[in-house]
Amino acid sequence: MENNLKTELFENFKNSKLMQLFGAEISNINDDYFEIRVPQKDFMMRSAGMFNGATMATLVDVSSYASALTKSNTQYYATVELKINYLSPAIGENLIAKAEVIKRGKILTVVRSDIYVAKQGSETLVATSLVTLMQLENENYSNQIH
Amino acid sequence: MENNLKTELFENFKNSKLMQLFGAEISNINDDYFEIRVPQKDFMMRSAGMFNGATMATLVDVSSYASALTKSNTQYYATVELKINYLSPAIGENLIAKAEVIKRGKILTVVRSDIYVAKQGSETLVATSLVTLMQLENENYSNQIH
Amino acid sequence: MENNLKTELFENFKNSKLMQLFGAEISNINDDYFEIRVPQKDFMMRSAGMFNGATMATLVDVSSYASALTKSNTQYYATVELKINYLSPAIGENLIAKAEVIKRGKILTVVRSDIYVAKQGSETLVATSLVTLMQLENENYSNQIH
Amino acid sequence: MENNLKTELFENFKNSKLMQLFGAEISNINDDYFEIRVPQKDFMMRSAGMFNGATMATLVDVSSYASALTKSNTQYYATVELKINYLSPAIGENLIAKAEVIKRGKILTVVRSDIYVAKQGSETLVATSLVTLMQLENENYSNQIH
Repeated sequence: MENNLKTELFENFKNSKLMQLFGAEISNINDDYFEIRVPQKDFMMRSAGMFNGATMATLVDVSSYASALTKSNTQYYATVELKINYLSPAIGENLIAKAEVIKRGKILTVVRSDIYVAKQGSETLVATSLVTLMQLENENYSNQIH
Repeated sequence: MENNLKTELFENFKNSKLMQLFGAEISNINDDYFEIRVPQKDFMMRSAGMFNGATMATLVDVSSYASALTKSNTQYYATVELKINYLSPAIGENLIAKAEVIKRGKILTVVRSDIYVAKQGSETLVATSLVTLMQLENENYSNQIH
Repeated sequence: MENNLKTELFENFKNSKLMQLFGAEISNINDDYFEIRVPQKDFMMRSAGMFNGATMATLVDVSSYASALTKSNTQYYATVELKINYLSPAIGENLIAKAEVIKRGKILTVVRSDIYVAKQGSETLVATSLVTLMQLENENYSNQIH
Repeated sequence: MENNLKTELFENFKNSKLMQLFGAEISNINDDYFEIRVPQKDFMMRSAGMFNGATMATLVDVSSYASALTKSNTQYYATVELKINYLSPAIGENLIAKAEVIKRGKILTVVRSDIYVAKQGSETLVATSLVTLMQLENENYSNQIH
């Protein structure tokens, strides 16, 4: 992966208000791969002590989107649809999203993002997902979708 | 819908750290129906000026879950899976989630949550979804799922 | 809806080997709407006496695809993804798929197809779905997708 | 995997009217794993020469269901929901579904079924999926779901 692109993705991530709010960090990045780690915060937790579904859906969305961007900085995407299966209660200190592109087409890109919870150093799969993204010709996509 | 239950749902919603963060309000509540409204906030927006997908997924998750709770305050649920289709760029001042239970089974409940954007008083459908929830026997669901 | 197009859609449906196998009939057709009805056949049934999930998924796929074609006979589509929720056991004499386009974009079209079972004249909703289709420039789509 | 159970699954598969119609064969079976292979037949094909989406959805449904049964012959399942992403045009002689259980819970089981097309000996991934199944207490599930 080109260093310029990597630097740009790190920069964009750092500037994301959403990711700042979540205290999120990029824990790995590679061709067709993007990994995000977040620590526990009050607003992410159910009263019974596990990460809530909204937080996992947010990580799926952001990590999938970012994984699509790992090939070129002249590509723009819109998320078409997102599907997540919650597998186990997410009890632990950190939540990690591991997104991998499984198909890059001319127009559509399909990503799988797996969500793990980290507890005392060991990781458990707690959710899996499939996300479809559409490549856009430029950043302002309203007139490309409507 | 019973007044006691309605009061309890309003109370729970008001105490949710996640919903406080979003500045969310319940805009309607009824049997099998739950409606949430959020104003624009920085962390909800894409740079091109529309609400991001993570915010819509969060509203789908919370509204669906809450709609399942409108029948009884002795029921607990876990979200099984969530699927959202993004239909149009969400440009406007408010985002509204309208969740409606379409099937209550003994164990599983299926909800559709439609997301609208409100702009100068008119509402446009920007996303639709299907969510499956599982009824639990009590609040601590780890040992009921594993 | 134009009569020419309607005639063409009926003709295509009649010539479909898959629909012949299912003994399927178009029970309604309109702008953005397509309805298919199939009678019980051995291969459609689970041993416990209800229609199987594969038959319902097939009707979702075919009805959604056909509903996308109700606007123009110069459009071609590929199915991008399909999601179906099974709501109740499908016990009855006929299965009916009611597909309705909920969003037509420049490239992507999203359809909801609801599956009903008919038993002694009354219909019950047994499954719902969301399907995404991509419009193609011509019939041979390999090089438009890859 | 127990030989008795394996024999029973082969027997059930051979007796399935749906699988007979498709000319399907089990090409592999193991704990939490079930693989089906079908040859081209007229009703499976789009006019442009690829396998249609309904055929792939059918294989996803059947293979996922069967993979859930590989642990015990005293378990019954109903399909809760099924989601399939079509990745590439499925051009080839055979279609192969490879279903693997990714989570077995007390009530719910989640399966991923990948669909490959085989052409002149080489296999290409053409679709992926996520399927949720619910374990039943006995074969007649109407009153367990309603």
